[in-house]
Amino acid sequence: MSAKIQDSLKHVVALAKRRGFIYGGSDLYGGFANTYSFGPYGAELKKNVKDLWWKTFVQERRDMVGLDGPILLHPKAWKASGHLDGFNDALIDCKACKGRFRCDHLIEEALEQSAEGLTVEQMTELVQSRKIKCPKCGAQDFTAARNFNLMFHTHMSKTGADGDVAYLRPETAQAIFLDFKNIVDTMRVRIPFGVAQIGKAFRNEITPGNFIFRVIEFEQMEIEYFIRESAWEKTFEEWLKAMHHWCQMIGLKSARIHEKEHPKEQLSHYSKRTVDLVYDFPFGTSELYGLAYRTDFDLKRHAEFSGQTLDYTDPETREKFVPHVIEPTFGVERTLLALLCDAYDEEQLENGEMRTVLHFHPRIAPVKVAVFPLMKKEPLAEKAMHVFKMLQTHWLCEYDESGAIGKRYRRQDELGTPYCITIDFDTLENDTVTLRDRDSMKQERVAISHLVQTLAPKLA
Amino acid sequence: MSAKIQDSLKHVVALAKRRGFIYGGSDLYGGFANTYSFGPYGAELKKNVKDLWWKTFVQERRDMVGLDGPILLHPKAWKASGHLDGFNDALIDCKACKGRFRCDHLIEEALEQSAEGLTVEQMTELVQSRKIKCPKCGAQDFTAARNFNLMFHTHMSKTGADGDVAYLRPETAQAIFLDFKNIVDTMRVRIPFGVAQIGKAFRNEITPGNFIFRVIEFEQMEIEYFIRESAWEKTFEEWLKAMHHWCQMIGLKSARIHEKEHPKEQLSHYSKRTVDLVYDFPFGTSELYGLAYRTDFDLKRHAEFSGQTLDYTDPETREKFVPHVIEPTFGVERTLLALLCDAYDEEQLENGEMRTVLHFHPRIAPVKVAVFPLMKKEPLAEKAMHVFKMLQTHWLCEYDESGAIGKRYRRQDELGTPYCITIDFDTLENDTVTLRDRDSMKQERVAISHLVQTLAPKLA
Repeated sequence: MSAKIQDSLKHVVALAKRRGFIYGGSDLYGGFANTYSFGPYGAELKKNVKDLWWKTFVQERRDMVGLDGPILLHPKAWKASGHLDGFNDALIDCKACKGRFRCDHLIEEALEQSAEGLTVEQMTELVQSRKIKCPKCGAQDFTAARNFNLMFHTHMSKTGADGDVAYLRPETAQAIFLDFKNIVDTMRVRIPFGVAQIGKAFRNEITPGNFIFRVIEFEQMEIEYFIRESAWEKTFEEWLKAMHHWCQMIGLKSARIHEKEHPKEQLSHYSKRTVDLVYDFPFGTSELYGLAYRTDFDLKRHAEFSGQTLDYTDPETREKFVPHVIEPTFGVERTLLALLCDAYDEEQLENGEMRTVLHFHPRIAPVKVAVFPLMKKEPLAEKAMHVFKMLQTHWLCEYDESGAIGKRYRRQDELGTPYCITIDFDTLENDTVTLRDRDSMKQERVAISHLVQTLAPKLA
Repeated sequence: MSAKIQDSLKHVVALAKRRGFIYGGSDLYGGFANTYSFGPYGAELKKNVKDLWWKTFVQERRDMVGLDGPILLHPKAWKASGHLDGFNDALIDCKACKGRFRCDHLIEEALEQSAEGLTVEQMTELVQSRKIKCPKCGAQDFTAARNFNLMFHTHMSKTGADGDVAYLRPETAQAIFLDFKNIVDTMRVRIPFGVAQIGKAFRNEITPGNFIFRVIEFEQMEIEYFIRESAWEKTFEEWLKAMHHWCQMIGLKSARIHEKEHPKEQLSHYSKRTVDLVYDFPFGTSELYGLAYRTDFDLKRHAEFSGQTLDYTDPETREKFVPHVIEPTFGVERTLLALLCDAYDEEQLENGEMRTVLHFHPRIAPVKVAVFPLMKKEPLAEKAMHVFKMLQTHWLCEYDESGAIGKRYRRQDELGTPYCITIDFDTLENDTVTLRDRDSMKQERVAISHLVQTLAPKLA
């Protein structure tokens, strides 16, 4: 990877903070555990992504319904799903400096060999026999490696028969499986159909990093698509296509997106095939989205652990069976990081100056149009405010009256605003404005009466 | 309260489950701690409410910006906010049956006197001296009352200098205060301005109840509006008006909404004035929304605990001061419960049959239009699908071709769908359809070419 690309993450992080997209979480207290806070423009960008996803995959499809399930599920659900027993990282502590490390990472970095598939005992033995040193303090004095579950747990004040531990969900998927029966019973869904959900999930990771790429608190947009077993290969391909189409819709450069097939021996316990859509991030090509064939693993396990049947009955043939599942998963934070990296550019202008610009697709840009009076005085300001108010009923707009026009353009370029409109002295004569395109920087004059119809197709 | 009204909550709960609005959380495992899951129609209703709120209070106001902060904040933030020390319920356990109770409720129910302001020692003494019996098993054998913090806590795997406890936020507000400085530094905001946020919060309540009225996991829509101290009374009145206006926008009956002023001696530690908007729920008149004048309490405390200045500098006079805060708070789940109770009706039809109907305002109704072919055959079905696809690009629509038309109307009435369109044999002749109004049940014939423009103002 070139130094320039490596460097670009720094620039993206700096811009994101400086222009109100993404702040460090609990910044005021020196930060907290790699959490982040989405500032005003980041919150709008995130909302645009989630709204477009919901419209595309729920509202415009007759084979899909939405769900908004809880973060706190019955503890038995995590026993059934396998998370309680199998969702672990092996961690090891340095007795000297109290530093804590992921043991597989420690081994991989020290010995340049994979620790995959090793038990905690084997890892402990390897750390001792190969005399691995603490990367922080250099000591050779580690505890034994221990498995730590990646689920955050908490306690309910209300005691009860089910014990008082509860877990923060590490994936949204299980909330969908738990409501499969409710949805089949109350909605008129027929296989094949899918259930979509957007929501927070939490993972108690010790090594988060790369800005918002790996965080302990994040949002997922997940679909569980219920099918007959015989349809899995065809459905898998359809969803793979739909996911590529989504990447196009939000404007990601297709040359930076690749498919990565998981080798059979590395598949999760529930999966028969998994393909990641990976993106060329500045820090390397890494997972953006995932598509997994989860078989009938989850529904069968929940049927077993709950003692209830999760059969689906074909309304025509009356045949009963447990549906199989194709699962497309989209991380919200990773989408935002890809969008920021993809859109970021530094360009030399004709006058030799540089501009920083976010080339967001207009569909997901936080601000769609900025309106400027040429000068902060009447009657220009009044006219500009009139145009602003007209456009604001259609799109999120900004009004900016301070500084030179060039400076105001630079400001909107950094926010990724696709169009700027200037009200000047000609406007007072003939009711036209200049409409400036962010990417080409070309300007055209448009009649105020035609503005909405001119902008509508450009912003759709 | 009349038996009829009391009864209506049961009917609302039953409808909500039966028609895919709200399921019990972890239903499959017999439920979990009064959590709920929003089914397909509930998820749409919730999204409509949140989207309208965001549009009204963030996107259409130049004095407001949005924020999307984390659930996990630095633990010191909860020390500063007062939640770590003062956000408690006194609980008491029955030694015989292991039942756990809120001690103030136990005293109030047994002795019919208020326990407000009593210490845990005084409550323990009262329970013993007045020989209060366990409401579950009748024993007179309680532990001492103890304060339990209402915040859920969890542990980070990553050890660090700040200890490894983290709390799930019990209100979204603090995430806004923590980013006050970031927002002032990176956005061009000037006092007065507000920051709005929608997000989850958690409270470890022992006595949740009344369906989704009091739950351990919920969503808040909160605004912190930053002002000069001298403006607090005026700003308070403005927000009170804006909150009433919001209730009108979502269609709540104004006769069921009242203001409730908190008496001075019952104000929270941070507040100088609080007014609740209360709603006539079936189980009694209870808090829907809250409006509090939080003074400069939070910013001053965070400045003190973080060691950073949270002064605001007036850009013209260069005067420095810590802003005061007016806080309008809107609970999402309570909004949904009020909307369901408000909209629910059982009406006798002309033919003597009954219909159950949700009179949702079209703005927030989950489904806007349902399209029916009179019969499930060509060319009616093809024509109906054409109309459905045309309308679906504008609004969330349903297509239903099964059963008698009357039955399909009943189904949409129960979902609160404002308009139904039927494609019949006349349609094939003259390209008109019947447009049926949910509330009046009147039908009119409308040309297909005029449908969008006929519906647009009705659904806005």
